[in-house]
Parts: sequence; C-alpha cells; structure tokens
Amino acid sequence: MGALSHVVVDWGTSSFRLWALDRAGHVLGERRSAQGLAASGVEGFETVLESHLGALGVGDGVPVMMCGMVGSRSGWVEAAYLDAPVRLDELAARGTHVPSAHRLIRILPGIAQRDPAHPDVIRGEETQVLALARRGHSGLACLPGTHSKWVELRDGAVEQFVTFMTGELFQLLRERSVLAPALQGATPVDPAAPDFAAGVAEALAAPASIGNALFALRAGWLLADRPADAALARLSGLLIGLEIAGARARLGAMAAVTLIASGPSAALYRQALAIAGLAVPDELDAEDCVRRGLHEAARIAFRLERVTP
Amino acid sequence: MGALSHVVVDWGTSSFRLWALDRAGHVLGERRSAQGLAASGVEGFETVLESHLGALGVGDGVPVMMCGMVGSRSGWVEAAYLDAPVRLDELAARGTHVPSAHRLIRILPGIAQRDPAHPDVIRGEETQVLALARRGHSGLACLPGTHSKWVELRDGAVEQFVTFMTGELFQLLRERSVLAPALQGATPVDPAAPDFAAGVAEALAAPASIGNALFALRAGWLLADRPADAALARLSGLLIGLEIAGARARLGAMAAVTLIASGPSAALYRQALAIAGLAVPDELDAEDCVRRGLHEAARIAFRLERVTP
Repeated sequence: MGALSHVVVDWGTSSFRLWALDRAGHVLGERRSAQGLAASGVEGFETVLESHLGALGVGDGVPVMMCGMVGSRSGWVEAAYLDAPVRLDELAARGTHVPSAHRLIRILPGIAQRDPAHPDVIRGEETQVLALARRGHSGLACLPGTHSKWVELRDGAVEQFVTFMTGELFQLLRERSVLAPALQGATPVDPAAPDFAAGVAEALAAPASIGNALFALRAGWLLADRPADAALARLSGLLIGLEIAGARARLGAMAAVTLIASGPSAALYRQALAIAGLAVPDELDAEDCVRRGLHEAARIAFRLERVTP
Repeated sequence: MGALSHVVVDWGTSSFRLWALDRAGHVLGERRSAQGLAASGVEGFETVLESHLGALGVGDGVPVMMCGMVGSRSGWVEAAYLDAPVRLDELAARGTHVPSAHRLIRILPGIAQRDPAHPDVIRGEETQVLALARRGHSGLACLPGTHSKWVELRDGAVEQFVTFMTGELFQLLRERSVLAPALQGATPVDPAAPDFAAGVAEALAAPASIGNALFALRAGWLLADRPADAALARLSGLLIGLEIAGARARLGAMAAVTLIASGPSAALYRQALAIAGLAVPDELDAEDCVRRGLHEAARIAFRLERVTP
C-alpha cells in the first residue's frame, strides 16, 4: 500500500460511499452511510463530507473526486451533462469545481442524449464504465438498478445509452399496487426459481402484453392461491425480460453484453441474459467499478502520475 | 314511467351507485356515494344499503340486484366466479343470495379464466356487457379503467377476456414515481394533444421499449423543460397504446371494437383506437351499460316479465 493520495465518493439519492485511496487505487479507508441527497441537503453537503474525511483522518489538501446525484440540480453543485457521444477521459477532465477552503473537489458530469424522440440521461453509472473505457473497450454494458442503463462503448467513448425503469417499476408494483397482497411476505427472488425463468421468457416472447401479465399475478393469487414467492419471482422475471426485449428494440441485435452489477441483481440478470441467449463474457462488480472509475477520473483530473499497482 | 319494480346497485371498491327502476328499466330514483368497500365494511353493508333505500322511500319486499366488488372475498357475501366461457344469462341466473329480513338480494358472480398461463378475473365489468349480450352480440368490447378489460363475446356468451393494468400504472407513475415532478400541475389530458398521439404511436410501434419510453418523460423534463401537460399526454398515450398492442398480442388481429367507457377516458380511447386503425362502430356509456346490465340480470333472476319500454 502506498500513502494516501486522494479520496473518491459515490454520492447518490439515498446513499453515500467514500474511499480513501493511494496512487495505485488501493483502498486505505472506507466510509458508508445512508446520507443521501435529501438528508445531506439539510445537514449541509460540506459538513457531511468533511465529517467522514475527519473520521478517516484525511487532512486538508487531499483532493476529492465525486460522482452521482450530488451533481444534480438538487445536489451540492450542478455538474452539467455532457452530450453523447463523449469520451470517458473527457468526462474525467471536465468535472465541475466545488468551492472549498479545505481541498480541491470535483464532481463528474453526467451524460445527456438530446435526441428529441428518445431523450435520456445518465448520472453516476457512467463512472462505472470509466473502468472499462481505460481498457479501450468497445461493446455493450448492462447496469441493473432502479433505473437500469445499457451503455454502448466504442473505443473508450460512450456512443449511446438507454435507461429502463425496471427497478422502480418493481418496487412500485410490489409495494403500492393491487399486486401487493399477492406478494406479501415473499422471500428474495431465487434466480433459479422456475417462475423467474417463466417470467423472463414470457416478457421476451410477448413484451406488448406486460400490462396483462402483471394483472395475471393478482388473478393467479385470487384463483389458485399462488404463493407469494412464485409471484414475486415471476414479477421480477417479467420486468427484467421486458428490459432485455426493450434493449434489443432500441439497440438492435446483440450477441454479448458486459454485466456490471452488485448484490442479488447480478445473479438475476446473469440468468435472464442467458435465457435471452445473450453471452456474458465479462461480469464486473458495480461497486468495484464505481471506485475504479472514480480513481481513474481522479488520476486524470488531478494529474496524478499513473502508478502500476 | 311505471311503478317501482326493483333496485340495482353497482358497488365497487371506492363507489356506490344505486338506481330504483320500473319494470322497463326506467330510472325512478338514484343514489350515489363514496361508500366503497372499505367504508361500508366498517358501517355494515346492510346498513349502508338500507339507508339509501330508505332515502328513496323503497319499502320492504322490493328486490335488489348488485354487482361489483361487493361480491368479492372482502365484500358483503362472496359471489364465486363462474368459469369462462359463460353465457351472460347464466351469470344473471346464478347470482349469490344475500340473507336479509327486508328483501330478496342477489350479487352477480364475476367470471374467471383458469388457464394457468394467463389466469384472469372480471368482477363488475361483465355486467356492462350483459346489455350487449341481450342483443345476441358477437365481437370485442373494450372497457377502459383502472384495470381495463377487453371482452370477447360470442352469441351472448363471454368467450374470453383480458385485463390490463393501464389505469393503475398511470396513477402509480403519475403520483409515486420519479416521473411525478415532470407531471406536476398538468391539466387533464387533451385527446387532441400531439403528445398523446405520439405516445400511442410509439407504444404501438415499440411496445417492448415502454420502460425506456417512460424514463424519457423524465429526461425530456430535465433536459428540455418539457411542459407537464405534454408529458402527461404522452404518458397517457404510451399506456393506452401499450394496452392496444397487448390486446392484439393476446386476442389476435382485430378490425373493430365496441367501446364501453365513461368520462374523459371515452375520448382518449376513441382517439387511440383510431390511431391504431381499429374501427369503433359502437360506443356505449359505461354507466348506462352497468344499469341496463343489472336491470337485465334482475329481470332474469327475479323472473320479471319483460316489458317493452
């Protein structure tokens, strides 16, 4: 391990993750909290950041690179979107300066697609693909989430991307819809559950019927007392299958995709992509990627010498 | 107008509508309230019903025919589903008896489709198509709503039906999702709005991409300050277009559909069906239909002589 060089922060709507790194990107210290945008807006963004830095003994002068919703209109300082296509090293070089008496602080911009027929934005997840871009990667990456992103890279640039509301639809339907009673008490979805696979296959085969396939979860519960676990697995499969069908509709035929995911969604997407006949030659942990991407951005922005780890 | 013959009630999750009719089905009196299932369960279903009957001066002995969620598991008395295909006069004849010291009371059963691949249920809307069935109608009817129903009639029987969660998705997305800020303050959707038509056309052309088309409403707001009226019109168009695409996927090619709707949804669906190239040779008011259907059911169940109006 080397000496402390810089700090990177992924600051989202509902979470805060900070890593203190050496020049090679090794983790020297780490902080996590639920101090997302709403909480931090009240407490003060600088107060929240400095208290975490203080807890790790990070002194003044150590620069900080951040990404995520902290750069949105309702964040600390707005980091305006760059337009796609955009090179990822350009993204790193054009971080927004955040005034601070303690240190250099930059927030990475998100990326916008201003096509009036399909406007789209990405803020935070682009940092995860910075790690791929460093390798001059071309190809497609799938980043599951509340708002899943499918990102097409070409020679280290984000060529285009597509967002799907998959995770948010899942939560809304699970908690707030007429399906809630049919899903109550369900355990986390097992990627090997036959109902998950059936849901994926059904949505791939008949994406247009999703509004009916969803209601069938209620009808199956009313008529056949279908267990909550099966219904939740099917709901998850339907929505992920719909996302894959949508990605194909928007991005055209595809053979392989890099999966960048963390936690339970990694296994679910791996399984769903296999059902859709898509190869996943590379699977990366989303949290590793955001840390590595931020490190790469810090290296470029703060003109740190590259050190072979 | 003839003398008071019987009373019909449409009792749903959130509303209560009652009509006092003569033998020919002419309306002699009417009551409406927001005493849906939850409210009535507390107060007592019989208390609620008798208080409305008392207010109209309806004495003991006058029979009552009801339909809707009052016959569900959480209603007054459960009226078990009949399996499709089912003749609509059979539905009328097999209403569930509700014990009462005051009068004969029956609740119409809903209809179930027990196909394990596509289970479905209908409870309430089937009464609206009773009015069509009396004419020995064959064909397709579209009944917009929180849970829209597409019902295929053949010679006075419900052959099959398909439910879509269109109205519920609209409400969830409008009020509870990340789209809410982009839709805030919007006026009711104008069926002639170009964004409504664009949404319908987009969902018909690319139903699989719905999860992305929805997010684009947020992106269009973030990037181009797209007005709330336009975004709401597009959301409505997208979801109704998706429903029509789904109905085609489930029911096969179709040329014409009878529209049974009330209020603003009638004009929106009329416009969306036209964009989809579907003829609407017949358009009926949903409230008229439920009253006429209940009247028809009462005539059969209570063995009332048919009187030419």
